[in-house]
Amino acid sequence: MEMELWYTENQTPALGLSLKVKETLLRCRTDFQEIAILDTVQCGRMLILDGMVQTTIADEFIYHEMIAHVPLRTHPAPRSVLVIGGGDGGVVREICRYPQVEQVTLVEIDAGVVEASRRYLPEISSALDDTRLEIIYQDGREYVCSCNDAFDVIIVDSTEPVAIAEGLFGTPFYQGVFQALKGGGILVAQTESPFYNAALLQATFQRIHAIFPQSFLYLASVPTYPSGLWSFTLGTKGSSPLEPAGDYLPPELRYYSPHIHRSSFTLPPFVQELLYQNVSPEPPAF
Amino acid sequence: MEMELWYTENQTPALGLSLKVKETLLRCRTDFQEIAILDTVQCGRMLILDGMVQTTIADEFIYHEMIAHVPLRTHPAPRSVLVIGGGDGGVVREICRYPQVEQVTLVEIDAGVVEASRRYLPEISSALDDTRLEIIYQDGREYVCSCNDAFDVIIVDSTEPVAIAEGLFGTPFYQGVFQALKGGGILVAQTESPFYNAALLQATFQRIHAIFPQSFLYLASVPTYPSGLWSFTLGTKGSSPLEPAGDYLPPELRYYSPHIHRSSFTLPPFVQELLYQNVSPEPPAF
Repeated sequence: MEMELWYTENQTPALGLSLKVKETLLRCRTDFQEIAILDTVQCGRMLILDGMVQTTIADEFIYHEMIAHVPLRTHPAPRSVLVIGGGDGGVVREICRYPQVEQVTLVEIDAGVVEASRRYLPEISSALDDTRLEIIYQDGREYVCSCNDAFDVIIVDSTEPVAIAEGLFGTPFYQGVFQALKGGGILVAQTESPFYNAALLQATFQRIHAIFPQSFLYLASVPTYPSGLWSFTLGTKGSSPLEPAGDYLPPELRYYSPHIHRSSFTLPPFVQELLYQNVSPEPPAF
Repeated sequence: MEMELWYTENQTPALGLSLKVKETLLRCRTDFQEIAILDTVQCGRMLILDGMVQTTIADEFIYHEMIAHVPLRTHPAPRSVLVIGGGDGGVVREICRYPQVEQVTLVEIDAGVVEASRRYLPEISSALDDTRLEIIYQDGREYVCSCNDAFDVIIVDSTEPVAIAEGLFGTPFYQGVFQALKGGGILVAQTESPFYNAALLQATFQRIHAIFPQSFLYLASVPTYPSGLWSFTLGTKGSSPLEPAGDYLPPELRYYSPHIHRSSFTLPPFVQELLYQNVSPEPPAF
């Protein structure tokens, strides 16, 4: 009998997803968090931060295509793009597919994530040497507050709002993002599962909604994330994502398409109702 | 310390979903399968057949709304509806919301499922006493082969294609369904996850596609099913589901809406490509 090693993420206190593990490739602690890379039977290599699955080789294309191409094809001419978090490089890889993008800034708090991804996730980190990219190791909230009128698109690819990522879900951070965006600029942030994180999704959406002239929620299916259904909140100073203005479409996408772009904004009634419930002038602080 | 009881479904040999259990309400073996009802912390009561989650109180509305309302609102005037499987009554409940439906036939092989649902899942089985409903305890494949030109809509709410449900995924069964449908009739069958059951989905879609004049795949997010993304295959002799002909919309639906109806047919490229790959004159037999 061969030993069976299984990794379990308790996605909620009462629900867990378990994956059979071939090999533990990395397990280390940085100043910020515990980083692990496991090679799993079902999903290939998997990046785990503080016990939470961030991405896997099998399904990373969905999250990365949907968090990047929706804003980049909504903005009519994205030239400068900021990514907060996302040290694995997956979002940067998708951004770098656009010839018109001139400058990409990646602000990641933990250099250890970038190093781990470069070494163990080459498919995901493949654009981290793009000449248009600058990597800054800093807290994303500090960074945006130092910027003004600087970016066409800002993408927040954060972990869950605990510990180091907590500040990336609050009103002061989104105000900083708003200031850091140029006229016509667009924010997209990952905002968790409508099933298991409904209160967080609602609070975060309402914070962004209070700051941006227009805001929208869209959905994508990511099997290794809690519930398999993931949300993104888009705030825009310019174009509406329902009528995307961009005309460049990177080739060979596997999840994103112009039709998926539009249909991802169609929300089931139970999600739609969540967004504008209990709107108070002061959403609960984080 | 209180004892923690967890139920795990190995959704694939290398991936499991685990739910913390408050109480085991039922565990029994019928002539056909093992039936269990567990009360879970995350999803409330849960029906499990032969170790596979069939439905939970928390998310049953999604599967039942999407398998029922898409065909019932595609058909211009559904009067007679056949459900194969679905002994829990969830699909019947959604069908009975349509005043124009005159006759519903439920063909379930295992009376034990109906009894368990009546006793432990009253929210789901609530329409099993509707006067328009006839319940027949028989193998669905045998039943459809005895029918001709009899139903406007046939819904196949089966378990996975192992053991008793295997015959509900093969060409002879779908030929029987085609015969049993009236002119303009519509079939919908659950066809598993595009992530973890891609080969099965492809083979099943291609079998239905070979028999019906038009066939379509649509998707819905069901968190307790493998990968969280579920597929349904619709074959039609009449109306296209992309331009639904029905005008009655039951009130207070939580997942289905006319917009969701249309957007659920928008497939990510990796799913779209699956459908027509490797089409051979003789798809692999089941």
